[in-house]
Amino acid sequence: MRLKDLGERRLIRALRRFFPARPPGVVLGVGDDAAVVRGPRNLILTHDLLVEDVDFRRALHPPRLLGRKALNVNLSDIAAMGGRPLHAVLGLALPGGTKREWLQRFLAGFREAAREAGVALVGGDMSAAARAVISVTVTGQAAVFVPRGGARPGDRVFVSGTLGDAAMGLRLLERSAKTGRSRPARRLVRAFLDPSPRLDLGFLLARRRLASAMIDISDGLAVDLSHICEESRTGAEIDLAKIPVSEELRRASGRPLGLALYGGEDFELLFAVRPRNLARLRLLAKRFDITEVGRIISGRKIWAVGRDGKKRPLAIRGYEHFK
Amino acid sequence: MRLKDLGERRLIRALRRFFPARPPGVVLGVGDDAAVVRGPRNLILTHDLLVEDVDFRRALHPPRLLGRKALNVNLSDIAAMGGRPLHAVLGLALPGGTKREWLQRFLAGFREAAREAGVALVGGDMSAAARAVISVTVTGQAAVFVPRGGARPGDRVFVSGTLGDAAMGLRLLERSAKTGRSRPARRLVRAFLDPSPRLDLGFLLARRRLASAMIDISDGLAVDLSHICEESRTGAEIDLAKIPVSEELRRASGRPLGLALYGGEDFELLFAVRPRNLARLRLLAKRFDITEVGRIISGRKIWAVGRDGKKRPLAIRGYEHFK
Repeated sequence: MRLKDLGERRLIRALRRFFPARPPGVVLGVGDDAAVVRGPRNLILTHDLLVEDVDFRRALHPPRLLGRKALNVNLSDIAAMGGRPLHAVLGLALPGGTKREWLQRFLAGFREAAREAGVALVGGDMSAAARAVISVTVTGQAAVFVPRGGARPGDRVFVSGTLGDAAMGLRLLERSAKTGRSRPARRLVRAFLDPSPRLDLGFLLARRRLASAMIDISDGLAVDLSHICEESRTGAEIDLAKIPVSEELRRASGRPLGLALYGGEDFELLFAVRPRNLARLRLLAKRFDITEVGRIISGRKIWAVGRDGKKRPLAIRGYEHFK
Repeated sequence: MRLKDLGERRLIRALRRFFPARPPGVVLGVGDDAAVVRGPRNLILTHDLLVEDVDFRRALHPPRLLGRKALNVNLSDIAAMGGRPLHAVLGLALPGGTKREWLQRFLAGFREAAREAGVALVGGDMSAAARAVISVTVTGQAAVFVPRGGARPGDRVFVSGTLGDAAMGLRLLERSAKTGRSRPARRLVRAFLDPSPRLDLGFLLARRRLASAMIDISDGLAVDLSHICEESRTGAEIDLAKIPVSEELRRASGRPLGLALYGGEDFELLFAVRPRNLARLRLLAKRFDITEVGRIISGRKIWAVGRDGKKRPLAIRGYEHFK
């Protein structure tokens, strides 16, 4: 197939310019049938498929930041396992009319994020598509890893960072023609366009055996907590007043709590901690921004405890960002 | 994102029904943030991105066979490295209206091919797309692996199987309304719809150190030979009369050689062998269908030697299957 062949050659040429042919631990890199790398004993594999107008909008997302995010959402999965990332494989299907600059900036962003995390890009595939598709696979390692299903009644529930910023950032981007971009809004927009994977926190929570269950918040606190509860066969209670919400989000939104619970795309960590480990966790809390938001309970229901102290069932639903 | 979330849950449910949760060597499988597997020392990573109407046509490809092919084209890359496949990660972006049966059949085919090759499906991601996108990453291992760039002048060039069948099969499928399906045509159609990765041959060529360079023929003999020559910094001569063409292809096509050189999608192996290893290769030739088609030469040109003994430059070009 000529289109595919030319596309692949073009990508490989671009990749080779952007990335060293053989980073440490990589026996055979970009440009062969497959990459050969030194494998760790516990190998972590994570895969994300990002489709234009479903998972991202090209018009809203500068290509460099999209390149960063395409890798970082996978690194967030590695962080949620408590692992260290090692290698990345990148697939790109782009419309025929894609500009060379767009590809170069996308790859520059991908490379930037890879360098920040010490990840080696070791292979790729290219195809064509009317709407862009980005597929990324990342390998990692973890001597100790944290599954979703390890929570037990009595565990406390924590989140890192603040929630809802990214969802509000996306809304601001969509409305940008009307609102312009004030300084606080820029932080929200950045949270959406360029999220940071919490690799150091995830790794330490695993290595120090502090987290009993962990997930990254991609679909919103409510949905991702339901994943932990489902896999752990537990319920949970969330104190709505404790959910960390940024000053910028409070100023920008009339309903910050809704965005924090359901907005998604935060790429913060949500994890459970046994009561006996709380003292040791507090040592980590000096270096990392983490907040206790609730507890794991028996049963299979998830409750929201309001400011009035009343418990109501928490609705578990996602958010449709793009129609 | 609701659509993505529902899609992912649906996929994970479907995957869990189809695949054992924890095959041997898989520490943590489908349904967590990432898979955790036992890593080999030399880890092979290969990735393919298949886009509807660019890399496949849903109307032409029964879903079970498409599921088989989605995995098998990646296994063909592992075969071309001389490796053994271990794990697969599957990403699927499907149109909203995709029928449940289509997904089930696709997954059944993927599972079939995985079982045949001893591959464990360990993770996945799901999204939506107007046209289906399939992204597959496969890991493998190889104590000895064969790169594309190891050929030297004097090496002989071999291919496995017969070439051009798949390209003709696709043409017959496209014309099927006119031609119907005679028995010989079925073999050609099958070559396109359901290619077999040459895992055993590739593995033995690597382990016995018989191949100096190897690639799988996905873009056609001419283009893939040019990849070997480019990476090895050599030229090559191909004897057109020696290119293996099936009886069925000769009967179905007026220009079988053109399809064998440029058709692509054969997923046979193309490899170079040092003269001193030819005797040992002949032992393998008893078990595997392999044919000597030419030799590696110095310089950077690729020549076709015709039946008249005359050398002409071989055109290096691909084939545009779908417009």
